[in-house]
Amino acid sequence: MTLLTAGILIIGDEVLSGRTQDTNSNYIAKNLTSSGIKLEEIKIVQDQKDHIVNSVKLFSDKYSYVFTTGGIGPTHDDITSESIAEAFNKKYEINKEAFNILEKYYPEGEFNLSRQRMAKMPSDAQLIYNPITAAPGFIVNNVYVFPGVPKIMEVMFSNVLKNLKKGKPKKIITINTNLYESKLAPFLNEIQDKYKECSIGSYPYFNFLSKTGGVNISISSWTMDSLDDVEKEISEMIKLNGGNYSIV
Amino acid sequence: MTLLTAGILIIGDEVLSGRTQDTNSNYIAKNLTSSGIKLEEIKIVQDQKDHIVNSVKLFSDKYSYVFTTGGIGPTHDDITSESIAEAFNKKYEINKEAFNILEKYYPEGEFNLSRQRMAKMPSDAQLIYNPITAAPGFIVNNVYVFPGVPKIMEVMFSNVLKNLKKGKPKKIITINTNLYESKLAPFLNEIQDKYKECSIGSYPYFNFLSKTGGVNISISSWTMDSLDDVEKEISEMIKLNGGNYSIV
Repeated sequence: MTLLTAGILIIGDEVLSGRTQDTNSNYIAKNLTSSGIKLEEIKIVQDQKDHIVNSVKLFSDKYSYVFTTGGIGPTHDDITSESIAEAFNKKYEINKEAFNILEKYYPEGEFNLSRQRMAKMPSDAQLIYNPITAAPGFIVNNVYVFPGVPKIMEVMFSNVLKNLKKGKPKKIITINTNLYESKLAPFLNEIQDKYKECSIGSYPYFNFLSKTGGVNISISSWTMDSLDDVEKEISEMIKLNGGNYSIV
Repeated sequence: MTLLTAGILIIGDEVLSGRTQDTNSNYIAKNLTSSGIKLEEIKIVQDQKDHIVNSVKLFSDKYSYVFTTGGIGPTHDDITSESIAEAFNKKYEINKEAFNILEKYYPEGEFNLSRQRMAKMPSDAQLIYNPITAAPGFIVNNVYVFPGVPKIMEVMFSNVLKNLKKGKPKKIITINTNLYESKLAPFLNEIQDKYKECSIGSYPYFNFLSKTGGVNISISSWTMDSLDDVEKEISEMIKLNGGNYSIV
């Protein structure tokens, strides 16, 4: 089975300025991981056409799936749709189905030119329906285009996910311990060398109030049937070194 | 005056798997913006040497400053330092100052080989001191290398920031209104066309409890002396269209 991969492209001046904390990529990341799709890269770019065009092309060639969020609203700074049309040499034009959806959604006389802009997409785009504020996202080739508002994006993404081809979910176990990373390191090295099919990561943390810290050790694998042996070996090692551990 | 620019490189399998919500880039982003340094790109890559090497080279050529977080701990999956050495064709070797700092920090006999690994850096690296857990970050050329643990990264970053060359801070005003984006769009288009030196962004939000939404309109400029005229024009426009507004 070929591994399914993904890249996320966040289109967002507001994230780059620090005004907004991006949470969309974390939401998508979690869902991809549990669906057996390996997220390999996240990129946050400016609201600039050439940057979006180049990144979309690159990601579309590299990954099984590309997810973009942001820049499909009605204002002048919403340039995602036309950028994606350009990336795939498609016309940027009114999508009739999207136009009809939006026309029905707005009170008579309020479906103005700006709002009509939200119906403009690359030709032959397949719509992603928006059950909350009507304005749809869309799919072109392997690129899935979502709005930036997290609550709306999340509902639309979870609908799209149902129809995505999934892989074998990545197995993950996380072990928490009060031992320090540098104490654990030589032992984790050895265990990693023994089990090449899994990836052992160690993520230290530090609590400023209590002046104590520890490590979360994550064992993960896309291919192993069970992580039990690795888990057991790490837990034993922690005990032998006088530490506490728990599975989190 | 040339505009100072920056790129952030987050080295983090744990972010890509969705296990960790990255907050480091938001912390750095806010501080850069208020220091007059324009953050142009954030990239989150896997803990893989070739990815890190290529991204560091690219970013170092493109931006005035590059900031990386993650992957400088003592374990096998910490490969940032050796990757950066490779990116700049430098030796990856024990930094004597870092070695001495770490040797003093650990109780006698506990400065083991794994811990000594944290003293290995590209040759001629300049240290970034770590007042919390001792293990330093470092600077090579225009690349600033920080650990991934947010609380530690933040303290170290704010010390580094004091010595960075800063630009004229970007001016930003945010106006909140209860009007919808698609209502505002044609007017914002016109105002944007009139004031080319600023960037007007509109960020819709939606509250699911109250089923109401609105827009935050952000006016920003790296070059204008005052945004007052733009702010006034937008506020008047909102009033004329029957909306409320407030400066946030």
